[in-house]
Amino acid sequence: MLITLTTDFGLDDPFVAMMKGVILSRCPQACLVDICHTIPPHDVSAAGHILAEAAPYFPKATIHVAVVDPGVGTDRRIICIDSGGHLMLAPDNGLLTPFFDDAYSAFQVMNDDLFLQPLSATFHGRDIFAPVAAALACGLDPRELGPSLPLGDLVRLVRPMPTMHGQELRGQCLHADHFGNMATNISQQDLATFLAPGETPMICLAETTITDLSRTFDKKPGSAIALLNSSNHLEISIPRGNAARELNLLPGTLVVVRKTGAPKI
Amino acid sequence: MLITLTTDFGLDDPFVAMMKGVILSRCPQACLVDICHTIPPHDVSAAGHILAEAAPYFPKATIHVAVVDPGVGTDRRIICIDSGGHLMLAPDNGLLTPFFDDAYSAFQVMNDDLFLQPLSATFHGRDIFAPVAAALACGLDPRELGPSLPLGDLVRLVRPMPTMHGQELRGQCLHADHFGNMATNISQQDLATFLAPGETPMICLAETTITDLSRTFDKKPGSAIALLNSSNHLEISIPRGNAARELNLLPGTLVVVRKTGAPKI
Amino acid sequence: MLITLTTDFGLDDPFVAMMKGVILSRCPQACLVDICHTIPPHDVSAAGHILAEAAPYFPKATIHVAVVDPGVGTDRRIICIDSGGHLMLAPDNGLLTPFFDDAYSAFQVMNDDLFLQPLSATFHGRDIFAPVAAALACGLDPRELGPSLPLGDLVRLVRPMPTMHGQELRGQCLHADHFGNMATNISQQDLATFLAPGETPMICLAETTITDLSRTFDKKPGSAIALLNSSNHLEISIPRGNAARELNLLPGTLVVVRKTGAPKI
Repeated sequence: MLITLTTDFGLDDPFVAMMKGVILSRCPQACLVDICHTIPPHDVSAAGHILAEAAPYFPKATIHVAVVDPGVGTDRRIICIDSGGHLMLAPDNGLLTPFFDDAYSAFQVMNDDLFLQPLSATFHGRDIFAPVAAALACGLDPRELGPSLPLGDLVRLVRPMPTMHGQELRGQCLHADHFGNMATNISQQDLATFLAPGETPMICLAETTITDLSRTFDKKPGSAIALLNSSNHLEISIPRGNAARELNLLPGTLVVVRKTGAPKI
Repeated sequence: MLITLTTDFGLDDPFVAMMKGVILSRCPQACLVDICHTIPPHDVSAAGHILAEAAPYFPKATIHVAVVDPGVGTDRRIICIDSGGHLMLAPDNGLLTPFFDDAYSAFQVMNDDLFLQPLSATFHGRDIFAPVAAALACGLDPRELGPSLPLGDLVRLVRPMPTMHGQELRGQCLHADHFGNMATNISQQDLATFLAPGETPMICLAETTITDLSRTFDKKPGSAIALLNSSNHLEISIPRGNAARELNLLPGTLVVVRKTGAPKI
Repeated sequence: MLITLTTDFGLDDPFVAMMKGVILSRCPQACLVDICHTIPPHDVSAAGHILAEAAPYFPKATIHVAVVDPGVGTDRRIICIDSGGHLMLAPDNGLLTPFFDDAYSAFQVMNDDLFLQPLSATFHGRDIFAPVAAALACGLDPRELGPSLPLGDLVRLVRPMPTMHGQELRGQCLHADHFGNMATNISQQDLATFLAPGETPMICLAETTITDLSRTFDKKPGSAIALLNSSNHLEISIPRGNAARELNLLPGTLVVVRKTGAPKI
């Protein structure tokens, strides 16, 4: 049974290995895959984003464990949701927001028979998430975890959506990847709705304007391009460069799309 | 069979993968778990600390391989100890000190039938540790590795212990984690011995004084707190901040605990 | 079946996990090993070097997937070669050059029945490399991937070779590891050819001269040494230091070997 792990624990400490040790002690046949452990500390939204990108490519019935948990040890809840045929285990702090639309059921993790004892107040990754994931991987029915929760009752993060202002579609930068490519919150669908047939988008940033969409990164090195990325969102890139750094793009930076090539009348 | 790996090889070079290739060539059914590969170069003590934190959470009979080995190729010995039901393989440079108290037996790894040939002078992780771990994972009796060694004969690192000076318990900072939380060498047991019932600790650092123990990180962001961490040691933290950096705490920095709330007579 | 992964995707993004999800969806029994994901972005040569170091230590029939692919989405080819009993999957951009001498056959990956649909233009690691690797791991014959290619037809990177100039052997620095040890392109064989019996090498760098070869790193900390590394190449090191940084050695820096101890006549 597959278990994926997403945390802000970093790579220098024993925390991730401790979770793996607990899981493999309780479910030796579990197959562990790291999604990311370098989520910025406490960045619940970034963890949700990365998990939402990766999870759909895993087989059905994978168990995804995400521990970015600044409220560890308080009365924040721990939840398990069943979404799109996957089980997701995380604190109820909004991390799983991207999965709510496809969620089928949610349970609060309360069954302390499953927890490590003594239970620490500061490392529930090891003491709760790991043993609960192991139990699920070994076949435990999620209903055994604790009471069912209404989906509408879960903590939800609000993500800024693009908006239309007359002849402008306004969105924002979301997240720069390792290459400095900056993804925006403007989807292929948003563009399709905004543009009439024959119109092409002009992407306006504070420091540059991009006058068309590229299909690949195979452009003049050093020049800013825009393309639809592999997650079907508008992305700003500089081939062989680093768009986020060179164009001063940060999460939240405004991105305005205007129309060019409007159909002749 | 589980094999864990702890090294100072970093993540940018092929060294760890070479060890994994050797292990999987010789024991295809081995299950490999990385504990940490970003131990500071040559920091034998840090490697021992991280392995000591993680190992207890792995199942019995796990084989733990730790290669922080500045003396590679010299006549420093390589040892295999049986401690707490786990096998530990490391250079005899003190790395395994935290495991000596629970050790049952120790062997010097001498059986060069197991080694890769030709044996390099500079990469025993690949040429000795990996094939020996594979052999153990495939069922080799540790007694086949080489002569038994008296446990008292192994190189031992001395770790500074906290001391009592009149009304003060004096310890020191040990290790900051990824969040900047600084663990000390003062254990829950040390505090329990130092404090009479009803007394609470006051933790004195060069730049701040903390007047109570918190249970969780759920405190005013930005203020220094002290708590017992998930390894039952006193730890200094700044919620949503970085205590090590903001309070100038380094490994070795003095931590003084005084008493407050002394029982009335 | 073993699949190794080498990319320039870094550790902070979901890209590697997405590839793993695809592979494990299509070939659940695959065993995945990361070789390196911190190849400098677009550095095809570095990826080839690291894979060439690691691959020989893996068992025969391992599938090695290497995705450093600045030309993704263009008409650059994707190739699968059979070299030394391993299958290698990479863009046809020279990455696999170190494996060409032992290659037995090469195929162009064209069989789009295997690809993820819809196929993105910017993430073939996920959409082509991962599902093709999974198919091979599940037993697909590489001839099913697409047309055979003449080995001489593949893109080849030229690596600088050391040269002899009278009484000098001139090579260059190649790659510094995590410890700052700088490997050169001068092999043990090059030295053996250059030196007569009884002669020893003197290694001349811009900032220092090293007058003999060491066998291990067990030398005076802080002094520059030269040794034959575990890949049988001349390497410059500073025990407990960082030779690359302290001696200003960069990839491409000239290394001159002269002779000392010439046999008396």
